Amino acid sequence: MVIIGSGFGGLFAAKRLKRADVDITLISRVSHHTFQPLLYQVATGILSQGEIAPATREILKRQKNAQVLLGEVGEIDLEARTVTSAIGPHRRVTGYDSLILAAGAETGYFGNDGFEPFAPGLKSIDDALELRARIYGAFEMAELEPDPDAVEAWMTFVVVGAGPTGVELAGQIIELSRRTIKNDFRHIDPRKARVILIEGGDHVLSSFGAHQSVKAQEQLTKMGIDVRLQGLVDAVNETGVEVRYRDGRVEHIASRCVIWAAGVQASPLGKQVAQQSGADVDRAGRVKVQPDLTLPGHPEVFVLGDMIALNDLPGVAQVAMQGAKFSAGKIRARLEGKPEQEAFSYFDKGSMATISRFRAVANVGRLELRGFIAWCAWLFIHILYLVGFQEKVSTLGHWAVAFIGRSRAERTFTLEQARGSLTNEREPRVPGTG
Amino acid sequence: MVIIGSGFGGLFAAKRLKRADVDITLISRVSHHTFQPLLYQVATGILSQGEIAPATREILKRQKNAQVLLGEVGEIDLEARTVTSAIGPHRRVTGYDSLILAAGAETGYFGNDGFEPFAPGLKSIDDALELRARIYGAFEMAELEPDPDAVEAWMTFVVVGAGPTGVELAGQIIELSRRTIKNDFRHIDPRKARVILIEGGDHVLSSFGAHQSVKAQEQLTKMGIDVRLQGLVDAVNETGVEVRYRDGRVEHIASRCVIWAAGVQASPLGKQVAQQSGADVDRAGRVKVQPDLTLPGHPEVFVLGDMIALNDLPGVAQVAMQGAKFSAGKIRARLEGKPEQEAFSYFDKGSMATISRFRAVANVGRLELRGFIAWCAWLFIHILYLVGFQEKVSTLGHWAVAFIGRSRAERTFTLEQARGSLTNEREPRVPGTG
Repeated sequence: MVIIGSGFGGLFAAKRLKRADVDITLISRVSHHTFQPLLYQVATGILSQGEIAPATREILKRQKNAQVLLGEVGEIDLEARTVTSAIGPHRRVTGYDSLILAAGAETGYFGNDGFEPFAPGLKSIDDALELRARIYGAFEMAELEPDPDAVEAWMTFVVVGAGPTGVELAGQIIELSRRTIKNDFRHIDPRKARVILIEGGDHVLSSFGAHQSVKAQEQLTKMGIDVRLQGLVDAVNETGVEVRYRDGRVEHIASRCVIWAAGVQASPLGKQVAQQSGADVDRAGRVKVQPDLTLPGHPEVFVLGDMIALNDLPGVAQVAMQGAKFSAGKIRARLEGKPEQEAFSYFDKGSMATISRFRAVANVGRLELRGFIAWCAWLFIHILYLVGFQEKVSTLGHWAVAFIGRSRAERTFTLEQARGSLTNEREPRVPGTG
Repeated sequence: MVIIGSGFGGLFAAKRLKRADVDITLISRVSHHTFQPLLYQVATGILSQGEIAPATREILKRQKNAQVLLGEVGEIDLEARTVTSAIGPHRRVTGYDSLILAAGAETGYFGNDGFEPFAPGLKSIDDALELRARIYGAFEMAELEPDPDAVEAWMTFVVVGAGPTGVELAGQIIELSRRTIKNDFRHIDPRKARVILIEGGDHVLSSFGAHQSVKAQEQLTKMGIDVRLQGLVDAVNETGVEVRYRDGRVEHIASRCVIWAAGVQASPLGKQVAQQSGADVDRAGRVKVQPDLTLPGHPEVFVLGDMIALNDLPGVAQVAMQGAKFSAGKIRARLEGKPEQEAFSYFDKGSMATISRFRAVANVGRLELRGFIAWCAWLFIHILYLVGFQEKVSTLGHWAVAFIGRSRAERTFTLEQARGSLTNEREPRVPGTG
């Protein structure tokens, strides 16, 4: 069988099939498993990429029925039951009896793909390192700039979208400007950096319910974040963003560092299999799967996590992990001739988002936690779910440095990133191949 | 005054002038200080970039007479006493009364710059992350490859140059193939990877003396490294390297991962100031400075570290650091009207190179250490010299993981690197700017 993707869905499906009588080929375009909920900490200099992105094949090395292949899947043929993957000139066709499609989602711009160079998202290690260079680099550029307006534009950070990722990024940027780097500069005062959080809806963290949202917004405002609700971004370019508010006002915000946390777009592989099977896709490219996560007419093909539109399930790790468990269970039941579960049902273990060090919001069942208690729950859960023991230990160390101390151990960005991200003059390092 | 470079020379010159009555502007094209002696561990997945490359401005944040500016120096005008630096469209001219030029060296190809895309060197964080992707990626590609000859080319690692960097890289690659990843693959046996160390001279680690060299070579051979002496690389391309041995034999080694540790080329700023001052430069672009490290006729301009040709001093951190101390001392003496030291004299504190975990060679004065004792000395010295406390702690943790355990915490490479380094199809991430 074939699994596409090494995220929470793909990796956990493979692990769930450890004792099953199947040969698993896991294909992914990256060689690591990305612990996406902590990407914002790589972007803001707390964690290294290794701490949240261990090599997939290392995680699965003792699972002898699983092999891991690096490659970008271009084509899935549901009739022939083959997957074609490639890296450079290497092209490979892999047959399957069962397929688990868990290729995740990318940042979505609602049709405005031209925003991307000026407002990258945060879905991958590449993104996180790019944002790290842009955030720390913006202060470097501000320090150099003689023109006060230009300084202000470099020191204005716009985060579009106030879901957990947007809130966490905004919180981290304001904290690093107020704590980590406050004494590092001579011409600018980093504490004067503005962080503007733009949200199209009526609330920040709207999935947490109105009460939690209001409290979270109070906290964000108290930290110095400028929260703008009911605002849609009409344009993004190298001068900043244009925001249209619901009341008709239009505002241009001068900013040299815009981050897009407003939407996701499922992997285009979803649309591809939907077309072949007659399934629908929604506006975000997610596949309307059957109640058992399969494609219509194709009980051998499961779609997981961020790629599915089913019962308004959120795009969180738990949906992918529980979907992985469910589909692995069905595959095992078929192999063993046992009855299969008919429909996937999601058990909401709760959701949480950090707002600042020592503060978070968490909803667990009907329980609404806030502040330090919620943050402790966040700490506990994230340590628990980090994949390996060594990642747990080194992450705890880096958290101690950042949360108890003031510094951040992983601020480093490369020369190539400095040239590219800060000046829009990125050059390929290998001459003649760009 | 102006300091160019944030390496051992530039950073330590700035620190030495902490209590002097000067305004220091330190200009560097990277925002971090690179602890070069450990770059090989970032390249081979033991350490993260943050652990060996803390932000320069964080190191100097309490030193109120120092400011740090990001920028690539393009022009130094010795007559006008100005330095022009730029990043993207931002251009800045900084005047100086004293100048310390410590811009270091890049990988040198002896006029064969065409080798570079196929045989990168290891002089920067960019290089280390590039090599990490190439090394771990080579095994990923081998796993995919159906053709046995192609597998062999991906699993043949050629390191050109058997100085400390070449020996350390070769040792790490063989160790990671034999220990870290030995169970990670299904189609290849990583333990069969070949590591070929090519040296033009008669000995590996020739600067350590014949006896140490012979012992080191024995150790390398015992570890499985194929040491080839008296071999010069005539050509490098995507199929591998062509080696011409002193006895006339010519050999083509098929390899998809070639690393160049055979030479350095001083920053071109050296040649620029040499031409203006009438100083000579050697073949490696190093400036023949006066005995007091200044340019002829320009007692206000000091040149440090890897940029100087003086008394056959080696290109090691100690030469840069002692030169920094010497020139800072002269600058302070001038300010205070005290007598200056006439000539720089280098005190050789010794040199060391690791061969494998728990094994190193070290020469301290007349004492020649080898094996575990030398490795303990290496451990002690490197922990001592790592810049910050948090870097020391987290580095010790990662060393425990790698040396006592078998795994390596920082194997992660990016999608962009996978596409670029492994397929020669690197694309710029920002569309339309490449």
